[in-house]
Parts: sequence; C-alpha cells; structure tokens
Amino acid sequence: MAQNVEEFLSVAVDAAKKAGELIRKGFYQTKHVEHKGEVDLVTETDKACEDLIFNHLKQHFPSHKFIGEETTAAFGVTELTDDPTWIVDPLDGTTNFVHGFPFVCISIGLTIGKVPTVGVVYNPIIDELFTGIDGKGAFLNGKPIKVSSQSELVKSLLATEAGTKRDKLTLDASTNRINSLLFKVRSLRMSGSCALNLCGIACGRLDLFYELGFGGSWDVAGGAVIVKEAGGALFDPSGNDFDITSQRVAACNPLLKDAFIEALKQSE
Amino acid sequence: MAQNVEEFLSVAVDAAKKAGELIRKGFYQTKHVEHKGEVDLVTETDKACEDLIFNHLKQHFPSHKFIGEETTAAFGVTELTDDPTWIVDPLDGTTNFVHGFPFVCISIGLTIGKVPTVGVVYNPIIDELFTGIDGKGAFLNGKPIKVSSQSELVKSLLATEAGTKRDKLTLDASTNRINSLLFKVRSLRMSGSCALNLCGIACGRLDLFYELGFGGSWDVAGGAVIVKEAGGALFDPSGNDFDITSQRVAACNPLLKDAFIEALKQSE
Repeated sequence: MAQNVEEFLSVAVDAAKKAGELIRKGFYQTKHVEHKGEVDLVTETDKACEDLIFNHLKQHFPSHKFIGEETTAAFGVTELTDDPTWIVDPLDGTTNFVHGFPFVCISIGLTIGKVPTVGVVYNPIIDELFTGIDGKGAFLNGKPIKVSSQSELVKSLLATEAGTKRDKLTLDASTNRINSLLFKVRSLRMSGSCALNLCGIACGRLDLFYELGFGGSWDVAGGAVIVKEAGGALFDPSGNDFDITSQRVAACNPLLKDAFIEALKQSE
Repeated sequence: MAQNVEEFLSVAVDAAKKAGELIRKGFYQTKHVEHKGEVDLVTETDKACEDLIFNHLKQHFPSHKFIGEETTAAFGVTELTDDPTWIVDPLDGTTNFVHGFPFVCISIGLTIGKVPTVGVVYNPIIDELFTGIDGKGAFLNGKPIKVSSQSELVKSLLATEAGTKRDKLTLDASTNRINSLLFKVRSLRMSGSCALNLCGIACGRLDLFYELGFGGSWDVAGGAVIVKEAGGALFDPSGNDFDITSQRVAACNPLLKDAFIEALKQSE
C-alpha cells in the first residue's frame, strides 16, 4: 500500500492532540451531561471529539473503515473486517471527565487484517501520549517504554474497574474476584480508564490488569498494540487468546502471566 | 504569637516543594526498596524527604513539635499535645512511588491546640499543590477550591483503599463494604494515597471517601484542613466526630453526609 504505518500513526497522533484540546477545555468547565443508564455518562465533548477524530482520519484515509463508541451507540455494532479499520474511543474515562478526575484519554487503534497495528492513547490532562506500532516498539511522550520486570504476584500492583453494571450477580462476582486476588497481590488501583490501565501495564506502573464487561473494542484497540510492543502479554482472563471484540481483557508482563491466569481462575 | 499562620503555610510550602524535587527525581529512577511487612514499602526517598522537611521546619520554628511517619516508625508514637505540632508524611503513596504510578504526595499539617490549622499536600509528579489555612480557605495551585455540589449517592464517585492488611477478617470486611457501597454509588476509585483522596474531596473530583486502618495522623493532618476549608465534612466513618489519631476517616460534601453515614452503617 502507498501509505505506511508511520503516516497512520502520525495522523492519529494529530487527531488525538486536537481532540485533547477539546477535552482539556471541557475538563475544567461545567458540563452538560446526558445519561445512558444509571452510571454511564456521555458528554458533548465525547461527541465533538469523535466527530473531530473521524473527520481528521477520513480526510487522510478515505478508504479506511471506522468504528467508534458514539457511532456504535447511535447506529449499532459495525462488524470488524480485514480492511484497515480505525477503532476509536474519543473519551475513555467519561465518569472521570464528568467528575474532574484526571484519568481521561483518547484511544485510537488501527487494525489491518483484524490485527491491532497502530495505537495512540493520549491523556491530555497530565499530557501523556502513549504510542505503538506493530513490530516497531511502544513509547511514552517519545521515549521507549517496557513492561515491569516483576515476577512475583505478592509484589505486584493490580488494576481493575468496578464497571457500570449494578445487578447483584455481576457485582457479587466482581467483588468476590477482588477479594480473592487481594490475598495474593500487593495492592489494587482503580483509575476509571481501561485504555490508561493498558498503558499503565505497558510502562510498568501497573503489573497486572484485567477487566470484564467494558464497553467494546474501542476501549482496547489502541492499548493492545502498546502493551504488546512494550513486551507485555495480552490475553483473555480465562487464559485463552485475546479477542478484541469480546469485552474481556487481561494484561501483564510475560513473567507473571501463568500465575495471574491461575489466580484469576481461583477467583471465579 | 509573633509568627502568623501565613508564615507557617509559606514555610511548609517551601519544604514541600524542596521535598518534591527529591520525589520527582526518585520517581523516574530505579529504587532501592526496603520492606516493612509484605505490602508496605519505604524508600530512601521517603527518609530523605522527612529529614529535609523536618530540618526546614525546625530551622524556622525551633519551638514547635514534630510527628512524622518515619520517625514514629523508628522511635515509637509521639503523643499529640496542644503545642504547635507539625505532622508530616514525607511520601504518601509509597507503593505508587515504587511502581511509578503518578499519585504520590507530600503531606504536611500543623495542629495548634490539637486543631488542624495549616495543611499542605503536594503531588510533585503532576505538579498539584493543595493548601489550606483554618478560616482562610482552600486552594489548588493558588486557585480557590470547593467540594462538589452532588446531593445524590447514586451519582457520586466514591474513593477508598484496599489497605495493607491481608488477614482474612480485615480483607473480607473491606470487600464486603465495597460490595454494599457499589450498589449505591456511581463508581469507585482507588488511587493509593489517603492525602490525595482528601484533596480529591476538597476540589470536587471525588464525592465520597472513607478509609479505615491507614498508617497514622500524618496521612490526614494536611488534608483535614483542606477538606474543611473547601466546605467539606470530615468525620469518623461511624458518623462520630473525626479523631486525627484514630486511623479512621470519612469525607464528603455536607449534602451527602447523612446518606453516606447511613450507607457506611449498612455496609458493616
């Protein structure tokens, strides 16, 4: 193909930076918030960012396909094909955005042949830009990053999320899992952004991350490349292969993978 | 007294900024870590920061008393008296520091007649300085802050921590409490710093915070003034009065206080 992956990344970074300006502006203002369900929020900024990012990408890559959280919510699921497909979460951490908690980001991933190939995750509040290209490494603000070298669960920092579902079955399973894992790890963080949790694994801030039942492929498409290129393992919490469309993800460094899968199994 | 509270604050801010440089430096380096217990860490930076802060404060206020996490660990508990007493956590969020998770801070509080009178909480990684003086307001990087105006639990963002204890009784109680509360609130954050959680309440990023069994008065002495001066309520999770020496704290805006206490009672 005429265009190369570096160009894909560069255009995606431009889009993320532009959307970041909108997010930064909104972050410090009073927001008009609509509700989708009781604990899930979407803001005007969310929609404006998705429009901005899609328009920017379409202008450069008119033949590519697009999957976004907002368009999916409005028009239903778009099937992932082998075509180059941009998968975008214009504002991951919407609850944080609404509350002013500084863990929000734009997540942009490009799959080619269904393989995550380019990833951009940008937190405009603390100005951290994570990038990755399949086979060419992962970076934080231009500097190479790699996963932690921790090999013991008991010294590992775990991240997960409470999720948005509040039915008793889901919530009991979720807190039982947390209870079981807390006996085995050093401590637990919940930051409210799936994409930033993946990047936390990639740069070694976090050792272990899993999440079940998040929104969709847009939460993980950008982070997936970044984790892999930082030397991390990405898999289904059951230990099976990672499936970008499954709404289930686990990530850690390769040294911890077997012990983490075992601990996740015991937590069921 | 000859010296005024503004001078106390100004000297404490200087100390926090100097210690912040040490923390920033250490944050991006490999660290030599000692262990206190299985999940509790203390670093060289922690000790260096406490020395730096105490020396700076003693130079300006030789007649004042001092309570610090590191000196307490080394020499035992110092009783809180009515004398002006600086209560210092040189590095709150040591686990975050060791892992490179950007929620770390210096917490400095001054009590006079046992009343928290001056508070400084500084996160040197994302450069946020929270300050408060009894009766004179609370500030983030010099701008006035106030607690959120949220009045419904179901729309509230809750923060707490997993703590460092890993015995079954404590851990089961902790996750049962979280389970009960998650049915009532929007979502949960765990950032790993008690002092920053208090400041999150003060600036309205978080609506509800409680923690049981944290290290000591140094975790709350700085944040206590900041929460109160931002219009927040600070109390024991049982609903009783806040006791700075009790290792138990809850905080929220006044609109949520009754409902939060009720929810905490039901979570036991």
